[in-house]
Amino acid sequence: MTPELAAALDAQTDFAADVFDRLRAVSVDVRGVTRASYGEGEQAAHGLMAEIARELGLEIAQDPAANTYMTWPGADRSVPIRMVGSHLDSVPQGGNFDGAAGVVSGLTAIRALQSLGHRPAQDISVMGVRAEESCWFGVSYIGSRSALGVLPDGALETAKRMDDGVSLGEHMAKCGGDPDQVASGPAYLDKSRIGAFLEPHIEQGPVLVEEGFPTGIVTGIRGNRRYPNARCFGEYAHCGGAPRRVRRDAVVAASAFVSALDRLWDEAEAAGDDFACTIGKFQTDAERHAMTVISGEVAFTLDMRSVDPAMLERLEARVPKIADEIAAKQGVRFDLGALTRAAPGVMDAGLIETYRAAAAAMGVTAMDIPSGASHDSAAFADAGVPTAMLFIRNENGSHNPDEAMEIPDFIDASKLLAAALAA
Amino acid sequence: MTPELAAALDAQTDFAADVFDRLRAVSVDVRGVTRASYGEGEQAAHGLMAEIARELGLEIAQDPAANTYMTWPGADRSVPIRMVGSHLDSVPQGGNFDGAAGVVSGLTAIRALQSLGHRPAQDISVMGVRAEESCWFGVSYIGSRSALGVLPDGALETAKRMDDGVSLGEHMAKCGGDPDQVASGPAYLDKSRIGAFLEPHIEQGPVLVEEGFPTGIVTGIRGNRRYPNARCFGEYAHCGGAPRRVRRDAVVAASAFVSALDRLWDEAEAAGDDFACTIGKFQTDAERHAMTVISGEVAFTLDMRSVDPAMLERLEARVPKIADEIAAKQGVRFDLGALTRAAPGVMDAGLIETYRAAAAAMGVTAMDIPSGASHDSAAFADAGVPTAMLFIRNENGSHNPDEAMEIPDFIDASKLLAAALAA
Repeated sequence: MTPELAAALDAQTDFAADVFDRLRAVSVDVRGVTRASYGEGEQAAHGLMAEIARELGLEIAQDPAANTYMTWPGADRSVPIRMVGSHLDSVPQGGNFDGAAGVVSGLTAIRALQSLGHRPAQDISVMGVRAEESCWFGVSYIGSRSALGVLPDGALETAKRMDDGVSLGEHMAKCGGDPDQVASGPAYLDKSRIGAFLEPHIEQGPVLVEEGFPTGIVTGIRGNRRYPNARCFGEYAHCGGAPRRVRRDAVVAASAFVSALDRLWDEAEAAGDDFACTIGKFQTDAERHAMTVISGEVAFTLDMRSVDPAMLERLEARVPKIADEIAAKQGVRFDLGALTRAAPGVMDAGLIETYRAAAAAMGVTAMDIPSGASHDSAAFADAGVPTAMLFIRNENGSHNPDEAMEIPDFIDASKLLAAALAA
Repeated sequence: MTPELAAALDAQTDFAADVFDRLRAVSVDVRGVTRASYGEGEQAAHGLMAEIARELGLEIAQDPAANTYMTWPGADRSVPIRMVGSHLDSVPQGGNFDGAAGVVSGLTAIRALQSLGHRPAQDISVMGVRAEESCWFGVSYIGSRSALGVLPDGALETAKRMDDGVSLGEHMAKCGGDPDQVASGPAYLDKSRIGAFLEPHIEQGPVLVEEGFPTGIVTGIRGNRRYPNARCFGEYAHCGGAPRRVRRDAVVAASAFVSALDRLWDEAEAAGDDFACTIGKFQTDAERHAMTVISGEVAFTLDMRSVDPAMLERLEARVPKIADEIAAKQGVRFDLGALTRAAPGVMDAGLIETYRAAAAAMGVTAMDIPSGASHDSAAFADAGVPTAMLFIRNENGSHNPDEAMEIPDFIDASKLLAAALAA
């Protein structure tokens, strides 16, 4: 049914465009849209998606974290279900497509399959996920992890929303959720009953635009190793009096560390290893630094990413060694501070193959692409659920009002999704 | 009279130690001493030096900037005079010797020469200089430059002391000065009538201690080129989404710039060129930086020093080129901001030879040493006065209460000074 399915998706172009327009209308801000986690815009988005799902005859449910499930019942309701999901919140004054495109794609694919008289073998459930954007509560994957029973202990009380200072639990309750149940009940989702978690999402970088592909099949979600509170200690000294051999200059040493990591990236590229690293903060101490004083202290952050768990392991051993070498040479001391770890989100090989086959059969050009950014899919993959992501071409990056996804590209990705749901 | 002069100086050991003790007593603070520019401790130091000079039969004078002149009249008062000078102020809770040692050395040398019945051919004038430490008013060499008629325009009104916010002019008047005269009168000192300006000063680094020399003959005072407000502009972007080739990372680029300057220093060392450079401040923007955001801006300072005017000229051409190369490679933009220049203080070759000959004749071990830090001597050298500096061995750096000059080293330096005054 490949050509028919492709045509059925093409026929959803106006439907999809209309849904995005209505979504924008319920969450419009001065610039772009704002759908705060457990806020007004997100709540309106959940309501709108449920309303559209009802028109498609789907069953609507809400879990204790107020995630929305829109389910097309399958012939056999006892077998593992197929899920499509992404988040319905946005950053402040963000774009209309980041997250929401995954939910709309699920509904669009179902509508196309319905138009062909398809009857799914198992339940197909579209999940409107709450609170993925960590800017609001400083906690990532709140909706996904609540549904999977792995929200960090205490987050419901301690995490406060950045705009109003009100706790996550209070916000969840206001949106119809049951934070006590999230905290102490069993997980709402039984991961052994989820056969697949499929998340279409706009690409947050320029790769698909530059390479000329409407869609990307995600090969993995990068995990990370982070040092959020690293420091380099030298010795403050008057820059005129101290000869070079006695200098212990924290800026020179920390800069050498940054350059060494940049060379490590060169090396990884040459070896074909996936890697990215970022020193987002780098600061001498404003209380003590001066133009004519050799710096005694630099505070910095380090974020390192790879889709390859072995690469992350190697970094964990290698980076402190690099710091030690520079410390010995420059007479400084590095205190890298606490290390945090996030495992890479491993994508399911079978689902990737399904997408590749569908792309070939339906004439959709799709390239393999790693996901540098984090997504709800990482939470599902981490829980052991077979997971796959599609990226949709998008200009101007994400997390800003200028996101520019084109509906034909969205339809192309939805073709692959529909094929995977029907397979 | 070489052996006699050396012995006469050795005989001043108790005198010198006593003067330093009395000086400490009039300016003692919770830790170390505090002699604020035109403040209580500095005023007391000027009073004490004048009192001791009077006991030596010297003529006392004060100029409109309240500098103190203690003069031993020469046989011919019409010929160019010989001056000894250094500053009597200190940093807050600084050491007792920084600056003051030069004035005490002048008085000690005169006392030794008097003990030998020496009668100078020309006036020998010891100058207690006001306000050398730029920490108090943000202006350097206030006393020296006022006496030479080159205080920057407007400084008397606009420069406020950091501890009380009161203007330089008001402070000067309170200490018996005449700021209107400083602003509009002719220079108090006629530089054509100064045959030599000689400044003994503690070394502010560890070189003499490490090398085992009690004294150093300064070969030159480093000039500088400074960029007090440099910036590197990249582009803020989410570190997950942006692939390496589109990154414009201000931290990576500014770190590469720091490392390039460190290599420039390697190069200068290899070529035997005098050079030092310091990036004292290096800061990502606290309003926008984050661990997972590629940095769009770094603010930094750059201080570069050399005794060699040609080297400073070369730096002025080369450093912007280094920035341009990194900018092109990293896709960033450097704005180095305004460049400030200070000429090196060229030491008089004849005076240096006099010191070297005296050291050899008197068995004082003295090494050649450049001055990395700035001194009043730079103002006199810049005015065209034949100038020379001696460094006195000192442990624990300067600008702190732990300065540790030993009196025998001070006497050694004073021997060279006395020889130059008597030559």
